[in-house]
Amino acid sequence: MNRIESVKNPKVKQWKKLHTKKEREATKTFLIEGFHLVEEALKKEEVIKELIVSEEVSIPASLNVDNIPLTLVTKDVMKAISETEAPQGVIALCREQDYSFDESWKKILFIDAIQDPGNLGTIIRTADAAGMDGIVLGEGTVDLYNSKVIRSSQGSIFHLPISKGNLLELLHVYKERNIPVYGTSLQNGQPHKEIEPADSFVLIIGNEGSGVDKDLLEKTDKNLYIPIYGSAESLNVGIAAGILLYHLRG
Amino acid sequence: MNRIESVKNPKVKQWKKLHTKKEREATKTFLIEGFHLVEEALKKEEVIKELIVSEEVSIPASLNVDNIPLTLVTKDVMKAISETEAPQGVIALCREQDYSFDESWKKILFIDAIQDPGNLGTIIRTADAAGMDGIVLGEGTVDLYNSKVIRSSQGSIFHLPISKGNLLELLHVYKERNIPVYGTSLQNGQPHKEIEPADSFVLIIGNEGSGVDKDLLEKTDKNLYIPIYGSAESLNVGIAAGILLYHLRG
Repeated sequence: MNRIESVKNPKVKQWKKLHTKKEREATKTFLIEGFHLVEEALKKEEVIKELIVSEEVSIPASLNVDNIPLTLVTKDVMKAISETEAPQGVIALCREQDYSFDESWKKILFIDAIQDPGNLGTIIRTADAAGMDGIVLGEGTVDLYNSKVIRSSQGSIFHLPISKGNLLELLHVYKERNIPVYGTSLQNGQPHKEIEPADSFVLIIGNEGSGVDKDLLEKTDKNLYIPIYGSAESLNVGIAAGILLYHLRG
Repeated sequence: MNRIESVKNPKVKQWKKLHTKKEREATKTFLIEGFHLVEEALKKEEVIKELIVSEEVSIPASLNVDNIPLTLVTKDVMKAISETEAPQGVIALCREQDYSFDESWKKILFIDAIQDPGNLGTIIRTADAAGMDGIVLGEGTVDLYNSKVIRSSQGSIFHLPISKGNLLELLHVYKERNIPVYGTSLQNGQPHKEIEPADSFVLIIGNEGSGVDKDLLEKTDKNLYIPIYGSAESLNVGIAAGILLYHLRG
């Protein structure tokens, strides 16, 4: 078992670099933090490459970490690597999942340029709960492996396939298979409750400020909106995603 | 027009005290920050007592502030009062709204001990959008005038009546009027979609960790849950509120 005492150790420096998207993309690895996320990641094989544990922390026996390389670190080293104010004392170095888009998916969420990490994480958690078969992240969407995305997904990033792709191109795949594609738009749409729940659909959720890209909205089968009955100007995009996903699914 | 240059000015000290719940309760006043919130507050009479504006900021002509006492402050004073990292330069001292519970409400949201200010604000915004008649905050709920609640409500705290009360006592009012009262519970409930949308109902949303209080759940007409189809352990409470409110309303 390795043990690291110095924050200047090259491995520590390398781990800290993973706080940047650039380094995550270059190495195809990312960090997760805390017992719950580690537990969720352990349920899948080949996700965790290495466990980094603070020496004053004991790993619960329920976590099966026998075959995973373990590095003990001092409290100060843990603090240096951690992105939280009160580290739980356990971090895992993970391999990026390599999901490609799958034509067999029937209930799909397309995400077009969501910017806020908390929103993306919450939407992934909600799509997981609603039983989506897969999620596709379009260009301009915040990095999936941003620590705030992972944290607010509460482990759901490990529960369903999430791929990246050109939404405009992928949209045609579903149109050819006669799976309805629903955009979301405040203008020129129809109230979401007019759509009957169904076993297969694509829902497109858009950017917090500008909504779904116009080129996409032109190619959808229908564009939906959630009626506003009171005086609020809009709904939070995560709330909107939840209302639509739970309405649309059968 | 007053002008304040020193962060040690007694008025500045008094405004800063309003960051605490104790002072807000003692004075029945609170602060709001930023142009959007001020605009929403101005739509109601008698809400804003005083405007505090940074001297390098110009107030848009669209904001009708003619009859409101105005105090100019330096950038440093604004920074001292502000609770945000990048102050917009406008803060309003507001009177607490004094809504009492109204028996004539037909669509009501009861909030039982929501702890996170962001969750409470988002839920208020969603209840506004869904056209609720009123909200009652039960004991143990985070302070309505916490700045994070106000910010995430996006002004909806000024759009619908929000009162405080003992939920257990108020619940009987609706039962006597034959308005159905729905709790939310992961155990012993029924799937939310089994309930037909209607013109009048009470929905009770509970604490992030422990859910709705047991004594309340025993007195409801029915307790609902949102089915989890995937592997997520739960939904975020704000998302759950959105799904339920938009399903239940007619």
